[in-house]
Amino acid sequence: VIQASLLQLDDYGPWTTTPHPRREMDLQTLQSRLYADVAAFVGSRDGYAFYTRGDNLLAFTNGLDRTAHERLQTSVRNRYPVTLSVGLGTGATPRAAVEAATEPLQAAGSAQDGDRTEVLAGETLAAPDPFDVAHFDVVDATGAYTDSEAAYGAYLDISSGFDALARRLYRGHDALTFFVGGDNAIAVCPPLDGSTYDDAIEHVRSAADVDLRVGVGRARTATAAGMDAKHALERGRDRRLTTVLATDGADAHAE
Amino acid sequence: VIQASLLQLDDYGPWTTTPHPRREMDLQTLQSRLYADVAAFVGSRDGYAFYTRGDNLLAFTNGLDRTAHERLQTSVRNRYPVTLSVGLGTGATPRAAVEAATEPLQAAGSAQDGDRTEVLAGETLAAPDPFDVAHFDVVDATGAYTDSEAAYGAYLDISSGFDALARRLYRGHDALTFFVGGDNAIAVCPPLDGSTYDDAIEHVRSAADVDLRVGVGRARTATAAGMDAKHALERGRDRRLTTVLATDGADAHAE
Amino acid sequence: VIQASLLQLDDYGPWTTTPHPRREMDLQTLQSRLYADVAAFVGSRDGYAFYTRGDNLLAFTNGLDRTAHERLQTSVRNRYPVTLSVGLGTGATPRAAVEAATEPLQAAGSAQDGDRTEVLAGETLAAPDPFDVAHFDVVDATGAYTDSEAAYGAYLDISSGFDALARRLYRGHDALTFFVGGDNAIAVCPPLDGSTYDDAIEHVRSAADVDLRVGVGRARTATAAGMDAKHALERGRDRRLTTVLATDGADAHAE
Amino acid sequence: VIQASLLQLDDYGPWTTTPHPRREMDLQTLQSRLYADVAAFVGSRDGYAFYTRGDNLLAFTNGLDRTAHERLQTSVRNRYPVTLSVGLGTGATPRAAVEAATEPLQAAGSAQDGDRTEVLAGETLAAPDPFDVAHFDVVDATGAYTDSEAAYGAYLDISSGFDALARRLYRGHDALTFFVGGDNAIAVCPPLDGSTYDDAIEHVRSAADVDLRVGVGRARTATAAGMDAKHALERGRDRRLTTVLATDGADAHAE
Repeated sequence: VIQASLLQLDDYGPWTTTPHPRREMDLQTLQSRLYADVAAFVGSRDGYAFYTRGDNLLAFTNGLDRTAHERLQTSVRNRYPVTLSVGLGTGATPRAAVEAATEPLQAAGSAQDGDRTEVLAGETLAAPDPFDVAHFDVVDATGAYTDSEAAYGAYLDISSGFDALARRLYRGHDALTFFVGGDNAIAVCPPLDGSTYDDAIEHVRSAADVDLRVGVGRARTATAAGMDAKHALERGRDRRLTTVLATDGADAHAE
Repeated sequence: VIQASLLQLDDYGPWTTTPHPRREMDLQTLQSRLYADVAAFVGSRDGYAFYTRGDNLLAFTNGLDRTAHERLQTSVRNRYPVTLSVGLGTGATPRAAVEAATEPLQAAGSAQDGDRTEVLAGETLAAPDPFDVAHFDVVDATGAYTDSEAAYGAYLDISSGFDALARRLYRGHDALTFFVGGDNAIAVCPPLDGSTYDDAIEHVRSAADVDLRVGVGRARTATAAGMDAKHALERGRDRRLTTVLATDGADAHAE
Repeated sequence: VIQASLLQLDDYGPWTTTPHPRREMDLQTLQSRLYADVAAFVGSRDGYAFYTRGDNLLAFTNGLDRTAHERLQTSVRNRYPVTLSVGLGTGATPRAAVEAATEPLQAAGSAQDGDRTEVLAGETLAAPDPFDVAHFDVVDATGAYTDSEAAYGAYLDISSGFDALARRLYRGHDALTFFVGGDNAIAVCPPLDGSTYDDAIEHVRSAADVDLRVGVGRARTATAAGMDAKHALERGRDRRLTTVLATDGADAHAE
Repeated sequence: VIQASLLQLDDYGPWTTTPHPRREMDLQTLQSRLYADVAAFVGSRDGYAFYTRGDNLLAFTNGLDRTAHERLQTSVRNRYPVTLSVGLGTGATPRAAVEAATEPLQAAGSAQDGDRTEVLAGETLAAPDPFDVAHFDVVDATGAYTDSEAAYGAYLDISSGFDALARRLYRGHDALTFFVGGDNAIAVCPPLDGSTYDDAIEHVRSAADVDLRVGVGRARTATAAGMDAKHALERGRDRRLTTVLATDGADAHAE
């Protein structure tokens, strides 16, 4: 079982155009800074938060209780022109946890209901189970894309690879994939075996012609699993392996 | 003719894992704050900057000369643990301008060449021509997605709509599309007529089953064109129109 | 007994002029953002951090263990061009705690020793005792200064009042006073009685001709004591009292 | 003639306690980030901005016109929970310019008048004259204070030196001095000769027992003058001189 948090800006869309449309770069600055604050807050408590849609952020927050989430809401209210509602949920998979986190927010009212402000609803988790963090990157992204393609084309190509990955892992395994910049994506997954990751990588190669590599960690917090995943990915880079599971060196699969 | 800037972090990938992998939420905080600073800098000079891959940012910078770009590089060097190289380019279309901005950076060395630091290369533009900024959103995104779907599914669906849009506009019209959060995407385009935007929206509806609306502005800076686009989009929302061109009320097309 | 942390940027002075002097506004931006990150980190864990000299920050950190301080050091290293050393100390008074926090850093080497990097030294506290947070402001600062004097003169006058206060409380009571903006100063004090605060206010009136008011809270964390102090100060404003102790309504002294 | 800007948060004091007092570390984070944004904005346009009281910031803004100040106001409104009023003024000395910048704000209403919002009033300057930026530091601050005294005592001692300096330069020469962190203070002055700076340093030595050194630059923007001042200060450090004027090596005075 894993805990997810949906962080939703209250009535944000209407605010961006009231009384008339606000400068786009101000909005981008606001959204990026707010996400950075959330990432710092959640990350220093061993969770992971993702930008997602910017006004709807998803976080995996094992170990953060309601008080911590309240403190984050207070901090946003005190420093930004917008407020934050939070849905908390738990589930056997990341997908189920996010669904559980979404429900109490939707039940409390519309995201554009001016009266629904700073809701904190849903359940937190007493005893988390281990889950997987899978850290993917693109094989030779610098040579194959950054140094050889025009910047936007490289971005589109890499995006299409991660898009194929996200759909595969979501539909097949209730896992949630997020682009995290550069040539990196992070998938938060239920415990999966190495062949499942191999299959996903093979799918992306055939569907989008992008070669991925993955390191996978398994732990009870996102930071612990994610750091193991990063080390596994480094081993994969060094040894030219496609899939490296931190939990079992023998599960490493030849590239 | 339009001016583009490619802002590339120097040797960033290796830095993120040296001497061992760095905490992911620290990296996310770093990337988001750096982008926010770029957006504030460029935006206050009437350009638009987009996060793109986070370590490779694209900006449309009509009016920003080399000195302004140098100042941005200095400011990054003085406040971050990483440095920034900048490629400048001009072209008849956004795509051509980004290609022109990519070339001098690639010619100066690899993005992961430890000796290629703080390059500033390429040409700026004396006399920009008008171009289009097209601001898209999803029709009834709150009702159809945010309030009714689980948060990750809503994100995937909206992403797939904008992905279809990006490919269509890039391949057909040398236009570059960026997701800017919520249910919004901004495309920087050469001057296009209303029927082209209609066709793109129709394509997204059939390919990804997502209903889009667009407001389009045309001007010599991104902020001027973008602000006109936002006002046009507001008119489209009010009057239930799919495509509204700021330049010509008569070009508005019924939804 | 109270716990203090001295956060010292490593070799910062030389860095600001190497290889040649850096732009001052970049340095100010860096210092302010770094302090803001420290304040957010410490504050969300119920401590208080003060800007002090910007490259030497003081914090009162009851409840933050070594791991929390390490995480802060890591986060600074990962996001700034500078690193942070931390001295931890405990003492019967705030002054004694800061002296105890300073010693292990000085013992580890000079602040400008290029080899002394990311030290974490000293002791944390298992069982904190209650201490005072005294929140001072200037009586009618808006009318007497902001709205009637030129901005710099108002700043000098208010500064001189808080300077007199800081010396009095430090020399007489081992308490540390920090200007926190506007017309506000916060003193971290050992438990003191109301007449001591009255005396300090009277001293500032006679020495610097500035009329202060104070609210005092007493608790085992800075946030708890500080929030009580703010409420007490509000009562003082409403009832025109000079000194209000949160712990005892009867200790309130008429203005 | 020099141009000053007074940046005043509207109705900020009441906001900090409405509906009840806000967490102090949130307020400190807000104030520091807002100042950092102002410093970045003004600094990238060759001005200098100082934190001053945090809710009343002073900036020297030769070359920034009303449109630039409006853009800053818009950016604050779009990203913070508070708004900014701006007074602009010009004068023969920094003191006179700040007085001129204060007047139109005071005339427009009280800083705590809930109806006085986003005022932009006063005059900008067409043709600035050269002025001095004097960059002071403490001789051997690291050895004499940071490495040998407890951190708060070092802070108090250095503060008292700069306090004596600020009063001397303000009363005697209409110059405004600001502590900028570490052991550094910056004074914005009318053009003064070397002996005046010598006298000020001698005064601080006798009044506060703190040994200062100064580098002075003279130019039409704060950044140009300030950067010359920093280089002059470096020469003073190297050659053990007390006062170094960038404009005339012969004016350098032996320590």
